[in-house]
Amino acid sequence: MSQVRVHNFSISLDGFGTGENLTFDAPFGHAGHRLHEWMFATRFGRPILGQTGGSTGVDNAFAERLDVGFGAEIMGRGKFGPQTGPWTGLGTDDEWRGWWGPNPPFHTPVFVLTHHPRPSIEMEGGTVFHFVDAGPQEALDLARQAAGDLDVRIGGGPTVVRDFLAAGLIDVMHVVQVPILLGRGVRLWDGVEGVEERYDVEAVSSPSGVTHLTFTRR
Amino acid sequence: MSQVRVHNFSISLDGFGTGENLTFDAPFGHAGHRLHEWMFATRFGRPILGQTGGSTGVDNAFAERLDVGFGAEIMGRGKFGPQTGPWTGLGTDDEWRGWWGPNPPFHTPVFVLTHHPRPSIEMEGGTVFHFVDAGPQEALDLARQAAGDLDVRIGGGPTVVRDFLAAGLIDVMHVVQVPILLGRGVRLWDGVEGVEERYDVEAVSSPSGVTHLTFTRR
Repeated sequence: MSQVRVHNFSISLDGFGTGENLTFDAPFGHAGHRLHEWMFATRFGRPILGQTGGSTGVDNAFAERLDVGFGAEIMGRGKFGPQTGPWTGLGTDDEWRGWWGPNPPFHTPVFVLTHHPRPSIEMEGGTVFHFVDAGPQEALDLARQAAGDLDVRIGGGPTVVRDFLAAGLIDVMHVVQVPILLGRGVRLWDGVEGVEERYDVEAVSSPSGVTHLTFTRR
Repeated sequence: MSQVRVHNFSISLDGFGTGENLTFDAPFGHAGHRLHEWMFATRFGRPILGQTGGSTGVDNAFAERLDVGFGAEIMGRGKFGPQTGPWTGLGTDDEWRGWWGPNPPFHTPVFVLTHHPRPSIEMEGGTVFHFVDAGPQEALDLARQAAGDLDVRIGGGPTVVRDFLAAGLIDVMHVVQVPILLGRGVRLWDGVEGVEERYDVEAVSSPSGVTHLTFTRR
């Protein structure tokens, strides 16, 4: 059966998966790029910045799994864009197609969770953004149907990951802990007391300074 | 010059250094012993439970440093006992001498921070509990004076460690992250945004499942 997986989900030591003050120019708010520098230093991550080279060790081994075996993604609206409330139709809101340019890296259907549905957006390369007002289980049913035999990625942000975690819907979760203290933002771990009892948890530190945590459902 | 150090300070993945509902029977509240099982499994920790044996790897190497080179400790009142407010003089409060029996493992002066000073208590083996109403710098001045050339241990709980951290008074800090999600309690990392900029941070995961984080002041 296809699995529900989280990969490369980066948090600060104090557990924030994103910072404060998200804008079009700052998708992670005051966190900047600090949560993902580890990934951009890998062979997997360098091309995202239009560069070559990169490390091929443990960070890269984990990072590459982000793209393997997925047939759909579920993301929160905050990952798609910084707008909140109704899509106003004023200027950039309607034209906004995410942070990823005309050919986003998903190449599958992507279900964007929002209380304000809007028509789907078809991009180059196979990515189609669907905007759905749905809870975790309902959204997962849609995504599984779209994914066929392939896995479903829970793409974040932190609120979406913890909602799916609390609902018991995640099979594999890879969290990357970065040694910075953001102090504010959105926490991954709120409301998931005792969730480790349902998982085998493995921690491995990388020479880069980050620690990879893998949760595998028992 | 003598250093100010934190050792074996255990936190959950979600950053709690102690749980909720501290009592005489449960010094860490609903966390129970889960934050310190890694230590009790080491050669350093086994004797604390009256046992022999124990692991001698990375967990033990870190654990043993707790006892090396200290001339004084500073701890919060919550580490000394679960009482809050004025010492009532009713029954156990006056007789309470901490959780550690007649010969506590400190063997030095220990400065207990409290807004309710009381006479010092001299124990067997060199431990003397002094109760002082002081801020971090003032308490450190007292402890340094008592410690002479030796180091000063900041013994916790989480509120005390983060107060000293925020005040820029800690030279070395060893934090042990345990793969559990406590969900509630007292967080170590509140109010210390960006503190990593003043430290070299190293992370190393142990086969036991915990991750040792070492902060060394630059």
